[in-house]
Amino acid sequence: MHRSNILCRITGVLKTSCSHRHQHTNTQATIIDGKKIANEILKNLKAEVEDIVKAGKRAPCLTAILVGDNAASATYVRNKMVAAKKVGISSDTIRLPTETSQDKLLEEVNKLNNDEKVDGIIVQLPLPKHIDEQKVFNSVLRTKDVDGFSASNFGLFSLNMCALAPATPLAVHELILRTGIETKGKNAVVCGRSKNVGLPIAMLLHSDTHGDILGMDATTTICHRFTPPDQLTHYLQNADIVVSAVGIPNLIQAHMVKKGACIIDVGISHVKDPSANQFKLVGDVDFENVSKVASFITPVPGGVGPMTVVMLMKNTIIASRLNSS
Amino acid sequence: MHRSNILCRITGVLKTSCSHRHQHTNTQATIIDGKKIANEILKNLKAEVEDIVKAGKRAPCLTAILVGDNAASATYVRNKMVAAKKVGISSDTIRLPTETSQDKLLEEVNKLNNDEKVDGIIVQLPLPKHIDEQKVFNSVLRTKDVDGFSASNFGLFSLNMCALAPATPLAVHELILRTGIETKGKNAVVCGRSKNVGLPIAMLLHSDTHGDILGMDATTTICHRFTPPDQLTHYLQNADIVVSAVGIPNLIQAHMVKKGACIIDVGISHVKDPSANQFKLVGDVDFENVSKVASFITPVPGGVGPMTVVMLMKNTIIASRLNSS
Repeated sequence: MHRSNILCRITGVLKTSCSHRHQHTNTQATIIDGKKIANEILKNLKAEVEDIVKAGKRAPCLTAILVGDNAASATYVRNKMVAAKKVGISSDTIRLPTETSQDKLLEEVNKLNNDEKVDGIIVQLPLPKHIDEQKVFNSVLRTKDVDGFSASNFGLFSLNMCALAPATPLAVHELILRTGIETKGKNAVVCGRSKNVGLPIAMLLHSDTHGDILGMDATTTICHRFTPPDQLTHYLQNADIVVSAVGIPNLIQAHMVKKGACIIDVGISHVKDPSANQFKLVGDVDFENVSKVASFITPVPGGVGPMTVVMLMKNTIIASRLNSS
Repeated sequence: MHRSNILCRITGVLKTSCSHRHQHTNTQATIIDGKKIANEILKNLKAEVEDIVKAGKRAPCLTAILVGDNAASATYVRNKMVAAKKVGISSDTIRLPTETSQDKLLEEVNKLNNDEKVDGIIVQLPLPKHIDEQKVFNSVLRTKDVDGFSASNFGLFSLNMCALAPATPLAVHELILRTGIETKGKNAVVCGRSKNVGLPIAMLLHSDTHGDILGMDATTTICHRFTPPDQLTHYLQNADIVVSAVGIPNLIQAHMVKKGACIIDVGISHVKDPSANQFKLVGDVDFENVSKVASFITPVPGGVGPMTVVMLMKNTIIASRLNSS
């Protein structure tokens, strides 16, 4: 198993924002500015790509496969490609019709696996219902699997070994580390147990610091749809760190949160804004009121979202090193 | 990815012991008799092997690699081979000297990977310090990895897909299911975060019932060496199910346990028995006093231990089907 420094220490960057320990003297949480931190990292990644090109190698290349005509999916892919351009990563999008068969999609993935000009492959979710998503993820070459959704990468990641880890959990990890939040021996609660967000976040939070993924040594509770509301409140009221990745607006309310807690909101829901008569993005957290109790909080939008795209770019650069070594 | 019924529904057996809901009216917990349950399963597995042989196929074959001369390791391997014999699984032990190089060990594993007469491969732990254990585990062919320690199996297992899962977590799972303990929406606490015991037990406890591993839908907390003692007590006092896999005698005491909880003790420590002036095996739980508070409890020895060996045999039969299909 390849364990070179290329993949190791996924988050080796210095703290850049809110890096000193926060003294919770006022009644308003510090907002963790995901957009600002993301831009700082993007600059570093751009410099890394420039170094690669200066060394005479081609720029890293990210290829997305987009199946069907879901407008939101198209926007997500476009945003990733915009970020790639900013960093100097070359990119390409392969569009396939909704009726594409699973075999045809697997064939496309296999072509990209064998194309030595492609470093990172993403298959945008959701896929049409006739396609087994996990089967497709597992078909992506481990060293090109920049989404980290394949079973082989998930296994390595779970075992604290070098791997391309999923971008959203890496984004949460990075925000917590850069903000200087103490995690060792603290109580962390993850709401949501999805395999690409909630579960890997719980892996990062509970695991040790000796492996390649820089675990956070927190006592970690995974809450989910079967956690009774009174128990959810019980766990949250004792939590120093809360990561919510559910998709239910206002799930996390002020009375449920411990004073001084750090709140990372990964939820994304579209709700109607009555004042403007249009839709707006909200997270899982009642931001306005929880801000008065927490010490740190991420906004939605502008928190985890921009960081996720950046971590995907970071993974693409890691993959380009893996594939050229 | 192969997802046939061979691997699916890892625990599809019926409840056989303590199967009706326990009414906690007395002050003494029901002891979960791991040895008795293990013997019941062994009989079923023996019948399965007989069917395989009747169908004209060879009996499943388990091969252990034992490196060095650790007496305890030799005993563990011997116990596994005794169980194999009881079930009708043919077995073999390859003994290598302590100074065996990692390359030589990998070569031996590779030989067994390519030997079509071998269905299951176990590399007994601990390995000498100059050998990277995880590297060796990852070299075992996924379909022969009956210990479930390889990254590829761990990834599939974590994603709730068919896999050869580690035997001790499967043993805990089986004991909980057969005892009829309600788990959905209940509070579970796992003490210990080892990659081959604590973590996969937490995976089984928190995950959903829709995948191949039959998750248990419990709200699950992972406690470990950095969980402060007062917080460990806090979590335990709220836990309906406690699984302890730490190796510290008397870690779990009566005042820390919720009345009516189910206690599964995976710890194994050798302590001096002052009354007999010899060593005896004990778990992590103060059995005598915790029995007065809990509703169900596993003893040490005679709880999880015998079940672990049985689940290894079950995995070997699954592997034999995988390798002959």
